[in-house]
Amino acid sequence: MMKETLWNNITQLREKSPLVHNITNYVVMNNTANALLAAGASPIMAHAPNEMEAMMNICQVLVVNIGTLDDYWVTSMKKAAQQANQLNKPWVLDPVGAGATPYRDEVLSDLLSLHPTIIRGNASEIMALAKHNITSTKGVDSSAESNEAIAAAHILDEKYQACICISGATDIIISRDKEIHLLNGNELMTKITGMGCSATALVAAFSVIVDDRAEAVTSAMAMLGVAGEIAAQESKGPGSLQVNILDKLYSLTEKEFMSTLKLEVKRG
Amino acid sequence: MMKETLWNNITQLREKSPLVHNITNYVVMNNTANALLAAGASPIMAHAPNEMEAMMNICQVLVVNIGTLDDYWVTSMKKAAQQANQLNKPWVLDPVGAGATPYRDEVLSDLLSLHPTIIRGNASEIMALAKHNITSTKGVDSSAESNEAIAAAHILDEKYQACICISGATDIIISRDKEIHLLNGNELMTKITGMGCSATALVAAFSVIVDDRAEAVTSAMAMLGVAGEIAAQESKGPGSLQVNILDKLYSLTEKEFMSTLKLEVKRG
Amino acid sequence: MMKETLWNNITQLREKSPLVHNITNYVVMNNTANALLAAGASPIMAHAPNEMEAMMNICQVLVVNIGTLDDYWVTSMKKAAQQANQLNKPWVLDPVGAGATPYRDEVLSDLLSLHPTIIRGNASEIMALAKHNITSTKGVDSSAESNEAIAAAHILDEKYQACICISGATDIIISRDKEIHLLNGNELMTKITGMGCSATALVAAFSVIVDDRAEAVTSAMAMLGVAGEIAAQESKGPGSLQVNILDKLYSLTEKEFMSTLKLEVKRG
Repeated sequence: MMKETLWNNITQLREKSPLVHNITNYVVMNNTANALLAAGASPIMAHAPNEMEAMMNICQVLVVNIGTLDDYWVTSMKKAAQQANQLNKPWVLDPVGAGATPYRDEVLSDLLSLHPTIIRGNASEIMALAKHNITSTKGVDSSAESNEAIAAAHILDEKYQACICISGATDIIISRDKEIHLLNGNELMTKITGMGCSATALVAAFSVIVDDRAEAVTSAMAMLGVAGEIAAQESKGPGSLQVNILDKLYSLTEKEFMSTLKLEVKRG
Repeated sequence: MMKETLWNNITQLREKSPLVHNITNYVVMNNTANALLAAGASPIMAHAPNEMEAMMNICQVLVVNIGTLDDYWVTSMKKAAQQANQLNKPWVLDPVGAGATPYRDEVLSDLLSLHPTIIRGNASEIMALAKHNITSTKGVDSSAESNEAIAAAHILDEKYQACICISGATDIIISRDKEIHLLNGNELMTKITGMGCSATALVAAFSVIVDDRAEAVTSAMAMLGVAGEIAAQESKGPGSLQVNILDKLYSLTEKEFMSTLKLEVKRG
Repeated sequence: MMKETLWNNITQLREKSPLVHNITNYVVMNNTANALLAAGASPIMAHAPNEMEAMMNICQVLVVNIGTLDDYWVTSMKKAAQQANQLNKPWVLDPVGAGATPYRDEVLSDLLSLHPTIIRGNASEIMALAKHNITSTKGVDSSAESNEAIAAAHILDEKYQACICISGATDIIISRDKEIHLLNGNELMTKITGMGCSATALVAAFSVIVDDRAEAVTSAMAMLGVAGEIAAQESKGPGSLQVNILDKLYSLTEKEFMSTLKLEVKRG
């Protein structure tokens, strides 16, 4: 995967402005919509079961984010995911808080059975998703958690044929024979709520532009990681960082992207 | 309509701080409340059917915005609109996504039958609202859409006795014999979610201050358009623009307003 | 209560990062989560009755904020508050809009009977909560409202054994034999939606760190008041103030805190 390809995908996103339907959580809706707009995509946010079918006909990709789930919203999430499958449109799962409560895990089990195209979560969420299957793969050094998450990602990939993104200080993208690491971003991004949710929405947007799942996810995570890393340099705290990331998603140049991107193709 | 009159309305809004009850969508609630506060008004946000009657007694105007509608919220929207009519208080409809799904159109048909005082939408939404009535009025040049939206606005005005605002690069206000154009704003405003929703809330606030519907709508759209245009000059992207618009709504001076406003009274 | 103690509590919050479960309103969720993160705490936002028990097992403190209440959410609020009591974890009530509608007052009556550990509201809300009990304590000068709110706070403290915080230009903390006044903040903070809700969430976070209720509340209100006062000096309006407060909650230093804090221990 070439850096030039990723930049080309970013310019394609800005030109084609894919329509992303989000069934997401209350906390991040505003920022997610703004991140999509700043990056060049077009957001829809709707959740009534009565209009899920019609919305899925209009949109090009679906995001299901369970952050503030309840039974009413879960009904719509399932309906929309099923419709995505029938229409052969990609859908992306953000398993917020996986493992935190039995209810979340039950809902996630149902959603996994609907075969999300892509799953993006942090290491703990990806491990929780795979927890009933995971074998002992614990390492002995500081990368133990990361190694365990990679093992979990492979289990999910094999079982559900989904491309997996483990986001963190290093973002790791796993898909069949591919493993890509991205080392961009800034620690201060963890002090803003919903950065992961924005990442998931951008992943969805790029999956309309790029057929290869791993390349789509890498494009999204690279764009956000680079924008966040540059934005952090001129931010005094998490408040200004949130604002500056939106500005940088909008104004990111090829030169900035190429000189900042830290990409490691481990396999594939 | 004189520019001085519009500025006088803005100072009146700041002095009288009208209480605006919003039944609006999840995506924009925070920004809408902040836009109302920055402009000098007082927001309420509530949606439980159990307290709609009491809230309508307290507030001075109602906003109904269907962005993230569902059956539970629609029940409250209708109840509040009926109550507004009984109490002779104005109510403003924001038909977000009109035409996107049959469910939205069904709900909008019900809401239109409750005779909103004012309707604010973009050209596509206004055309969708009037679509079952519209006759062929397509122009042949680049203003075709705008011309068609104006025709749709006249249909809605006549059928429902509502003042219509078509917002866009040019904001067009239609009410009976009046047609007013505002040419303020900045393209970057389209990259922030919920600018239209903030406009609708400001329209509602001014409708408490000004009896003439067209003048109230023009005051609101002028305030936001001028604030946005000035704010854009010092913004690096949509993130900082969102922040700067709130600052400028709060700090806008008569000199800034008068020197920036681009108003064209076509008729009336 | 020493200023040094309050600063020490702030450093403790940053180190221990308490997990705060918020059942709060749609308008402020994003800002509340960001305020908690900026101050050093960890937010959870969830509301489905199915996972209230599990969430209460995980979290260290609960916030119940009734801003956009409805029956479904109230069910979860009560369930979570009961669970907090059983687990001997503190819970904080934010009675948004107390007195505005009969429905709100009915719900608040039920919530009060579950004995919140701490209640934070503005003067009007605190007076509304105590209104069925209040005796005539009206003063004759400009502090009449403040005096009446203090009387209301004492009634609530005695009846429900809750620490009461009346926030405003002066924040007043009442708990049994203690009365503490804080004189920080800036008028411009009233032009941002949800500052009180952020205050309530911070109060909850500090109640995990500090056993003494009045000291916990004072630490939170002092941190936010000082951050807001400093942030206002470099803000052009409510938009930039909202951003700058998050930055300052994150970056606040001992020197800034000590030199800005205006604390008056009236009793205790």
